[in-house]
Amino acid sequence: MFFQLDSDKMSAARLDKKKTLDLRKKHIGPSCKIFFSHDPIKIVQAKGQYMYDETGQRYLDCINNVAHVGHCHSDVVKAGAQQMELLNTNSRFLHDNLVQYAQKLQATLPDKLSVCYFVNSGSEANDLALRLAWQYTGHKDIITLENAYHGHVSSLIDISPYKFHQLSDAERNQFVHVAPSPDVYRGKYRADHPDPATAYADEVKGIIDKAHEKGGKIAAFIAESLQSCGGQVIPPAGYFQQVAEHVRKAGGIFISDEVQVGFGRVGTHFWAFQLQGEDFVPDIVTMGKPIGNGHPMSCVVTTREVAEAFMSSGMEYFNTFGGNPVSCAIGLAVLDVIEKEDLQGNALRVGGYLTSLLEKQKEKHLLIGDIRGCGLFVGVELVRDRLKLTPATAEAQEVIYQLKEEHVLLSADGPHRNVLKFKPPMCFTTEDADLVVEKIDLILTELENALGLKMHSISNVEKESSKRKPPIDENGHQHDDGLVQRKGSGQAAPQQTKQNKRLKS
Amino acid sequence: MFFQLDSDKMSAARLDKKKTLDLRKKHIGPSCKIFFSHDPIKIVQAKGQYMYDETGQRYLDCINNVAHVGHCHSDVVKAGAQQMELLNTNSRFLHDNLVQYAQKLQATLPDKLSVCYFVNSGSEANDLALRLAWQYTGHKDIITLENAYHGHVSSLIDISPYKFHQLSDAERNQFVHVAPSPDVYRGKYRADHPDPATAYADEVKGIIDKAHEKGGKIAAFIAESLQSCGGQVIPPAGYFQQVAEHVRKAGGIFISDEVQVGFGRVGTHFWAFQLQGEDFVPDIVTMGKPIGNGHPMSCVVTTREVAEAFMSSGMEYFNTFGGNPVSCAIGLAVLDVIEKEDLQGNALRVGGYLTSLLEKQKEKHLLIGDIRGCGLFVGVELVRDRLKLTPATAEAQEVIYQLKEEHVLLSADGPHRNVLKFKPPMCFTTEDADLVVEKIDLILTELENALGLKMHSISNVEKESSKRKPPIDENGHQHDDGLVQRKGSGQAAPQQTKQNKRLKS
Repeated sequence: MFFQLDSDKMSAARLDKKKTLDLRKKHIGPSCKIFFSHDPIKIVQAKGQYMYDETGQRYLDCINNVAHVGHCHSDVVKAGAQQMELLNTNSRFLHDNLVQYAQKLQATLPDKLSVCYFVNSGSEANDLALRLAWQYTGHKDIITLENAYHGHVSSLIDISPYKFHQLSDAERNQFVHVAPSPDVYRGKYRADHPDPATAYADEVKGIIDKAHEKGGKIAAFIAESLQSCGGQVIPPAGYFQQVAEHVRKAGGIFISDEVQVGFGRVGTHFWAFQLQGEDFVPDIVTMGKPIGNGHPMSCVVTTREVAEAFMSSGMEYFNTFGGNPVSCAIGLAVLDVIEKEDLQGNALRVGGYLTSLLEKQKEKHLLIGDIRGCGLFVGVELVRDRLKLTPATAEAQEVIYQLKEEHVLLSADGPHRNVLKFKPPMCFTTEDADLVVEKIDLILTELENALGLKMHSISNVEKESSKRKPPIDENGHQHDDGLVQRKGSGQAAPQQTKQNKRLKS
Repeated sequence: MFFQLDSDKMSAARLDKKKTLDLRKKHIGPSCKIFFSHDPIKIVQAKGQYMYDETGQRYLDCINNVAHVGHCHSDVVKAGAQQMELLNTNSRFLHDNLVQYAQKLQATLPDKLSVCYFVNSGSEANDLALRLAWQYTGHKDIITLENAYHGHVSSLIDISPYKFHQLSDAERNQFVHVAPSPDVYRGKYRADHPDPATAYADEVKGIIDKAHEKGGKIAAFIAESLQSCGGQVIPPAGYFQQVAEHVRKAGGIFISDEVQVGFGRVGTHFWAFQLQGEDFVPDIVTMGKPIGNGHPMSCVVTTREVAEAFMSSGMEYFNTFGGNPVSCAIGLAVLDVIEKEDLQGNALRVGGYLTSLLEKQKEKHLLIGDIRGCGLFVGVELVRDRLKLTPATAEAQEVIYQLKEEHVLLSADGPHRNVLKFKPPMCFTTEDADLVVEKIDLILTELENALGLKMHSISNVEKESSKRKPPIDENGHQHDDGLVQRKGSGQAAPQQTKQNKRLKS
């Protein structure tokens, strides 16, 4: 599908792609990775759930949760542009945008969460949450989840096993404790466990007890309300309540990281922590990515008690850009659009439709081990073996690469990089869902043919899977069964079959 | 001076001021301070070097270095608005704005500094600089300057004595070492020292030696190229070269924090570290505030060697908003305006003119102890006594408050909060300089009359001051001589005289 690029703005594609790539190699930190590194995409324009490359080729965007209300939404652009013309300054001056935005944001949260700090990124938000917790409790130890990712500043690398698993023990922070991910598909306690919520919460209790034995004191438990990079994990309901009870009993507080999953994405609720039940209220909520539809902004909301304790240190908190009138105008516009266009309702409806389509695919494709999600936050975990749960890492990468050739953007994540992640702009439609699932169906069919996987034994497999035991040392990095390393991609992928070639032509 | 508020956009003043203030108290973290807390200003519009309150009253802005090329500069607004309409996404896609901006920024720097990381704030930049230093050197210890401020995330509170001086020793980071501020007015080695640059650099050498004795290893020395919050301190030329030599010999690197002072503000050079001489090149430069004229963006630039070492850890660096096409379009526009309007030249000319006016005031007012600055980065240190250097903290606050009543925005900072800080938008004019200095003259005259300070002994004082010794325990918080605490302001201020009252009516 092609798009007429706005010719007035064709300065948007000024350099040829090779030149862009060469300059990038020269001047941008090599640790900053690019999508599809063997053949990256140059995007010059975007609208709604679609992105367009320099040739006008359209891509269906299933991954950019930051473009929450749709890429370049006109209401958001207008709000930002108008305010940029009027005033953009720091929050040491009084401004209505700041207080009206705080008020509107607060109205989406339980009453108790009433005090806001505006910052510039999810990382700044989570770092401030830690500072608040340390100051309020006077304690130092933090409990985080296995595979968690909370941001890129140094204090957050310390609490992000998704990042620090690469580090030696000596480089790890001794005040950080890692609890098992409450993953009922692949984790320590699974769907067949009578009460996984309690079992996982008891693990946290055990960590607290151990920390106490060593003289540690718990400042906070931090978790994404649904783990995103960690593999689209949906914790069992009741888990957070029990964890909060254990943590608060130890004098600590509960931080809900909603950077990836907040703002109506889960469909039934505005905040993902609310999936756990109305009786659960965290002490701090951090927000980020979707909050400004791409504009750099972010927020920490907490209770009056925590905020007063933070102030009592006597240390001022000043954030140069945080809460400036432009950011707040944009934030207000995003909230307005979510409401006006019923995007939370859309997430519920389209997310439900997408999940039902995927469930049908699971009946058809052995490679699909699990479908899990809420609203437009959906994970499809690919496995080589439904009993052993062998991660189908290479296959997941192949799906992603082939979808890209088909002009659909999807990504794979989780500790084994075998979970297809859906987190599209919230204006995603049922037609979009049909399109991407149809393409996944074709790609999986071909992959399964290449791997000799057939669905004939499905009923036995399903029976067996209810008796599953933890997989033994499956690291997801085996490249046998016709799988080869894709040149330059750094990722394993199946050998090209005829159909693969056709898909790419 | 009054201004016709743009009536189309009068939504800009939607709430009455009391309501804005009440909502702020309810919903914004109490640690987030406001200017002139006993009677804060509500700003609704700004242009160039002027800000306007909700009544249309104009204020001359001498403090907002963030609005670098002038508040709401039309080129910057246009660049941002146009790009917001087209595309705003992350840097995992190729985009010309990112690479062209990196290229243009690099061209302002020594060749060796060629690799950029785009982030969202000065704090994110300085935190990343520490991560780069730790990874490159494999060392952990950081040397920072007395009174330094490098940002609000937890790793930067650790290296900011301006902040952590409030903390107990137990709360301080044991890997952080504090070197004396190279302040030749009030510091350990002064203008009368034969070689203060070497003396201050030798202090750093001493710290390195002590750290080594205890088994420490130096990762980096970090300093603002000119200390800003620390009191507008201009380090003696040659200091950075010698420090860099000591630090590099110990296996560490040199980080120049240009967050406050970069982008041509110093007039003679684009970067303030260049004031030290062409033979000085830091290993990392961090940028912030002025880079996007208020848009939340920031950058770290380093050498290929440091960047490669960071990559070799295997850990990807991803920053959701950093380097997005809108931020880069804005950054490019800012660089273009600086060039097109010769704002660096303007900083040199107007800054020189401002400094010469202030020097004349120093001849007239005993309260002025020191004038120091480069371009449009100027500090005026107020003292009660030119021999003892007793900080005139309350007087500095009174100047600020009275200037506000006169619709001029200035601030006071430094460890004793007695340094008047000029860092206006770069379009500041000689007329603006005349206006603010004339008002300061009136205020100081009145203050000196109230305090009974006369200039009669000036020549003796000046003679004495060349034999100065370090002041004994001057904390700047004495409120005698008719000075009382201003109610609600939390700041000390002189009693109102008749003229004070007139100024405020």
